[in-house]
Amino acid sequence: MPRPDPVAPADAEARALALALLAGARHAALAVIDPETAAPGISRIALGLDAQGLPLTLISQLAPHTAALRVNPAAALMVGEPGPKGDPLTHPRLMLRVSASFLDRNAPGHAALRAHWLQSHPKSTLYVDFADFAFVRFSPVSALLNAGFGRAFRLTAADLLPH
Amino acid sequence: MPRPDPVAPADAEARALALALLAGARHAALAVIDPETAAPGISRIALGLDAQGLPLTLISQLAPHTAALRVNPAAALMVGEPGPKGDPLTHPRLMLRVSASFLDRNAPGHAALRAHWLQSHPKSTLYVDFADFAFVRFSPVSALLNAGFGRAFRLTAADLLPH
Repeated sequence: MPRPDPVAPADAEARALALALLAGARHAALAVIDPETAAPGISRIALGLDAQGLPLTLISQLAPHTAALRVNPAAALMVGEPGPKGDPLTHPRLMLRVSASFLDRNAPGHAALRAHWLQSHPKSTLYVDFADFAFVRFSPVSALLNAGFGRAFRLTAADLLPH
Repeated sequence: MPRPDPVAPADAEARALALALLAGARHAALAVIDPETAAPGISRIALGLDAQGLPLTLISQLAPHTAALRVNPAAALMVGEPGPKGDPLTHPRLMLRVSASFLDRNAPGHAALRAHWLQSHPKSTLYVDFADFAFVRFSPVSALLNAGFGRAFRLTAADLLPH
C-alpha cells in the first residue's frame, strides 16, 4: 500500500507564510549543480525581491555558484532562518526550485532593477557597479513549505506571486 | 590572462574555524540532486558529529532529500548560521562537498552511533527508533570556508579531520 502523501497542497495560510518568508529574507542558501563534477554545490547569497515580488540576487563572477548557474540555470533556494533559540527544525522554511536568469548590464530594465535593489540593500552600493557583479532573477518552478514537523505544503509558481 | 585565484589553501586558523563551525552546528542546509528532474534540491537537516568528528544526520525516509541521497550520494552541506544582527554575508560559513552513506539499523556500530547522537540530540529520542528514520554519515570530499568578503579558503578532507 502506498504511503499517504505527507505534503498537502498550499492553503491561504501556507501561501501567506511562504510569501512572508520570501519577503523577509535578506539572504538565502543556494543549491546549484557544479558543472565540472555534476555534484551539488551550496552557498549563501544575498536575496531580495524584484518589483514583481520574485527572488533576486546580486552575485560575483568570481563565485563558484555564478559559474555553475551560467552553465545550468536549474537551482534551489531556501529561506527562513532559525533564530538562536528553539528547535531549528521546527522553524518554518521555504524551499524553492528555481530557474536562474542573468540580467545583462546593458539590458532594458537594468537601471530600474539596480535602483530597486539598492533601496533594500544600500550597502551593495559599494560593489553593484563592479564589472564582476551581475543581477540574477530566480523564476520559481515549485516550492515546498515546511512549517514545522508534520506541516508540509506544496506550492506552485502561481502560489508564490504576490497578489 | 587568467584571474588570480581568489581562494587560498587553508592555514591553521582557517582549519580551526572550519572545525569550530562544524562542531557548533546543530543543523545544516543540504543540497542534493533530485532523481526525477536532475535539478538541485535543498532542505534543512539536523546535524551532529560522529565519534570521529565527521558530520552525521538522522533523517526520515518520508523526506525528499532521503530519496535523493538513496539514488545519488553526492551532496553538499553548509553550516555557520548568521545571527540576527550584522551583514549575513560577512558571517563565516563552511560549504562541504560530501558523499552520503546510510547506516543500516542492524549494522555493527549502529547502537554506539545512536547513543552518541542522543547525547547531543536528546529530543531525537522521540523518533530515533521509528522505522522511517535512518542515520546518514557525510564523508567530506572537499570544502570551502568563506570567512567574510575576500577571505575564502579551500580545505581538503584531511583538513576536516579533528586532530
